[in-house]
Amino acid sequence: MAPSGGGGGGGVAPPARVDLNADLGEGFGRWSLTDDDALLDVVTSANVACGFHAGDPETVLAVCGSAARRGVAVGAHPSYRDLVGFGRRYVDASRTELVADVLYQLGALAGLARAAGTRVSYVKPHGALYTTAAGAGVHGEAVVEAVRRFDPELPLVALAGSPLLDLARAAGLRTVAEAFADRGYTATGALVDRRSPGALVTDPSEVAARVVRLVTEGVVRSVDGADVPVRAESVCVHGDSPGAVAVARAVRSALEAAGVQVRAASS
Amino acid sequence: MAPSGGGGGGGVAPPARVDLNADLGEGFGRWSLTDDDALLDVVTSANVACGFHAGDPETVLAVCGSAARRGVAVGAHPSYRDLVGFGRRYVDASRTELVADVLYQLGALAGLARAAGTRVSYVKPHGALYTTAAGAGVHGEAVVEAVRRFDPELPLVALAGSPLLDLARAAGLRTVAEAFADRGYTATGALVDRRSPGALVTDPSEVAARVVRLVTEGVVRSVDGADVPVRAESVCVHGDSPGAVAVARAVRSALEAAGVQVRAASS
Amino acid sequence: MAPSGGGGGGGVAPPARVDLNADLGEGFGRWSLTDDDALLDVVTSANVACGFHAGDPETVLAVCGSAARRGVAVGAHPSYRDLVGFGRRYVDASRTELVADVLYQLGALAGLARAAGTRVSYVKPHGALYTTAAGAGVHGEAVVEAVRRFDPELPLVALAGSPLLDLARAAGLRTVAEAFADRGYTATGALVDRRSPGALVTDPSEVAARVVRLVTEGVVRSVDGADVPVRAESVCVHGDSPGAVAVARAVRSALEAAGVQVRAASS
Amino acid sequence: MAPSGGGGGGGVAPPARVDLNADLGEGFGRWSLTDDDALLDVVTSANVACGFHAGDPETVLAVCGSAARRGVAVGAHPSYRDLVGFGRRYVDASRTELVADVLYQLGALAGLARAAGTRVSYVKPHGALYTTAAGAGVHGEAVVEAVRRFDPELPLVALAGSPLLDLARAAGLRTVAEAFADRGYTATGALVDRRSPGALVTDPSEVAARVVRLVTEGVVRSVDGADVPVRAESVCVHGDSPGAVAVARAVRSALEAAGVQVRAASS
Repeated sequence: MAPSGGGGGGGVAPPARVDLNADLGEGFGRWSLTDDDALLDVVTSANVACGFHAGDPETVLAVCGSAARRGVAVGAHPSYRDLVGFGRRYVDASRTELVADVLYQLGALAGLARAAGTRVSYVKPHGALYTTAAGAGVHGEAVVEAVRRFDPELPLVALAGSPLLDLARAAGLRTVAEAFADRGYTATGALVDRRSPGALVTDPSEVAARVVRLVTEGVVRSVDGADVPVRAESVCVHGDSPGAVAVARAVRSALEAAGVQVRAASS
Repeated sequence: MAPSGGGGGGGVAPPARVDLNADLGEGFGRWSLTDDDALLDVVTSANVACGFHAGDPETVLAVCGSAARRGVAVGAHPSYRDLVGFGRRYVDASRTELVADVLYQLGALAGLARAAGTRVSYVKPHGALYTTAAGAGVHGEAVVEAVRRFDPELPLVALAGSPLLDLARAAGLRTVAEAFADRGYTATGALVDRRSPGALVTDPSEVAARVVRLVTEGVVRSVDGADVPVRAESVCVHGDSPGAVAVARAVRSALEAAGVQVRAASS
Repeated sequence: MAPSGGGGGGGVAPPARVDLNADLGEGFGRWSLTDDDALLDVVTSANVACGFHAGDPETVLAVCGSAARRGVAVGAHPSYRDLVGFGRRYVDASRTELVADVLYQLGALAGLARAAGTRVSYVKPHGALYTTAAGAGVHGEAVVEAVRRFDPELPLVALAGSPLLDLARAAGLRTVAEAFADRGYTATGALVDRRSPGALVTDPSEVAARVVRLVTEGVVRSVDGADVPVRAESVCVHGDSPGAVAVARAVRSALEAAGVQVRAASS
Repeated sequence: MAPSGGGGGGGVAPPARVDLNADLGEGFGRWSLTDDDALLDVVTSANVACGFHAGDPETVLAVCGSAARRGVAVGAHPSYRDLVGFGRRYVDASRTELVADVLYQLGALAGLARAAGTRVSYVKPHGALYTTAAGAGVHGEAVVEAVRRFDPELPLVALAGSPLLDLARAAGLRTVAEAFADRGYTATGALVDRRSPGALVTDPSEVAARVVRLVTEGVVRSVDGADVPVRAESVCVHGDSPGAVAVARAVRSALEAAGVQVRAASS
């Protein structure tokens, strides 16, 4: 299924296909976090750091090249300017500032992607910007404005069910609703706070089973034990934890065994 | 005259047209250096900072918008990553690193320029990178590689007479030879070191007269009193000194009074 | 009067002395904002940038040397890590992170001050950290903890009437209550928001008259026209606006003409 | 043996004691490199990053606390300002700039160390600054000037046999001559270039045997097979490679088995 152009129908069957995305290129100079090459063998979309929370140009150029060789879609993963905080801290930027910051990052990644023989295919905000923008306030508006001014054809990836998806669609952007493979969900379909019990699911086979159910049935079991409807076109597997690659492989294998087509949402 | 595609003829008349360029957008957040709007009323090409020596995204977006409204060509002004040193310090980057750093900056500016309704029309390295690359060693090769991989149609602006011009042409790039309006020249056509006597000419009418002679006769008077041949398609006026705007205006007026056509070299 | 060790009495006469402080060293590399030498001839306390919002080491070392030669007290002016935002943006740092950030900045300035023949005599948070910490939440606690761990004898400068003053005193720190020479006050003694009418008073003689009244009578005229009690041991004059030096000189002259002793609060 | 106050005698026996130092705190925010706690159980001196090549304040504060609890000496490990290059790239800083940069870093670490209950006991430059300063040119002079102005009692750790040791002694500083446990040596006692064969010795028992010989006999086997005299008071074990901790433990065990006293040179 291509990115949604509108609101999506209510009663249709859950998608028989899904995109798997992961955050990559999250090193900086001497430091690295993720096993980029191993993850690129599993995912269909690579959210590539753009330099503000991680992603020095040399690392990013290499990741884009690896993605290009494997046919993995490259997405921009812009952040607040916060290297030391890895983009996980809210920064009270003005709208104008943030529009320019996102444009700068989109362009920078696009330059490196082009040199590597590929291109930026979608945009997914990172960290605190992801969370803040999901609520579709001023920072959500800034993200939408930046994407529209950069390239109005680029899909925006945002949390399934979030107001940002509506805001982006209203602005004429294509959207991709995203779920998280290893995060716990509340009874309302929100993510469990990272510091609360049940925030993370770590067992690879449990993660895989949850993702298959999410994709084929459109539901996820919440921390309260109830099934919650979650409609997602892309599922994020994390790359920066021990065992990340094993989890990602388990998810992909389980999806394929269930007959789900795994391919980039932005293609 | 369009950027040179080849070596240029020997006996032809000096150009009846010239490009005037200045470094703009050289602020960072709360700080600014140049009167960008005033200079944009005078020059035909704006070398816009890309964030590594100066140029926060918001400032750069604004400069690109101002340039677009006036029809001034936007050029990328990439630098070593050295904010505190304003890109004036040599940094011993590897070739691979520098290629990626330049690509990152070209892309970032391109993203902001596009959003502002214009585009990157040429590349001119900044500061220590300008000087080092002029010698066409590893860092000169890195600049040429980055421009080629980003967009092989983009002209590269480099010091008139420098080995970098030859290197770029050999790689198939278009080039623009540049002279400096307010810098002293040695008897061999090199720039006088900034710390030596005669490094800077500050009187606006003297600067203007020198530029007219350079453009119409192809010579400049050296600090030793001899006339030195300098063939330049673009002349740089500085923007970050007191009186910069007055000097730039004097140069443009004198050129126009002498019947020289002032227009962007990259157009 | 030395920094308050306790809550201060209610009915005592307004102080016959006052400290004048200004933010200095707020350049970064090629950029500068303030006429540091001119301001150092007027103020008794210099809030010196520590590198996180401004203040490269070479600039800071020079400012410390100038302050030392004039006998002006050097204070640390720590900030959120936000160079591009000049420390004016809230950053959602954790308490632990912020304690370490402040310690780092206090130490860095202390090293430069020592080499310049002086020392850090007090601490005044900068920008968004000043405002946030004034409320005495987690970031206020972090500032107090950092000062205590660095040197429990160092006074903390904070907004007159703010909860941070109480928090600091309760932790055993000396405090200095501060007022702003050129800022408008509301009827409750708070500062008028920078974006609202009446936020800034710009006429030097009006600023000077307000400061004299504040120091000798303990009141300031609010934007609503009522006299509001404000008890301050130090008054901040701004250094980064055109005419800043003229305002500072007018304030000092008027204070001296009124018989007020102008000297550092931290001495 | 305490740090050398003078030139040292020629014919005395090799030291019966040695210092083991390692570079620690070389993370930045989300990223880390070294197993700081494990290394602190082995070494007697911790070269702690000061923020310019690595070492965010929170990490540094934690390392200082761990060192304090174990009685390991904390040394400052200042660098060129080059986070993305991990301080391994030469930066053409001016002498004045570099003096201030080193003072800033020494002070910053001192502030964190003090809050952690310890203090800075010595200075060892990092990376490209280590190598450049070893030659005792302008950057070597800047390092010596910074240490003297910060605290003339602080020993400076530098490469055994390097001109920097002489320069520092001539300036009245205490010095500590250093050798590298896992680096190859040329026939002249210099380190084999990192990119050449034999640059690194990786087998723990071989490294250990070399260090024991170096400490007890004052010689090291060069890549050419000859024994070269190397007089060192401190030996650096690397912390940022796989197996670093195993190598460090092997070195310490072998030294103790050989009856060598392992203790901080700066104590």
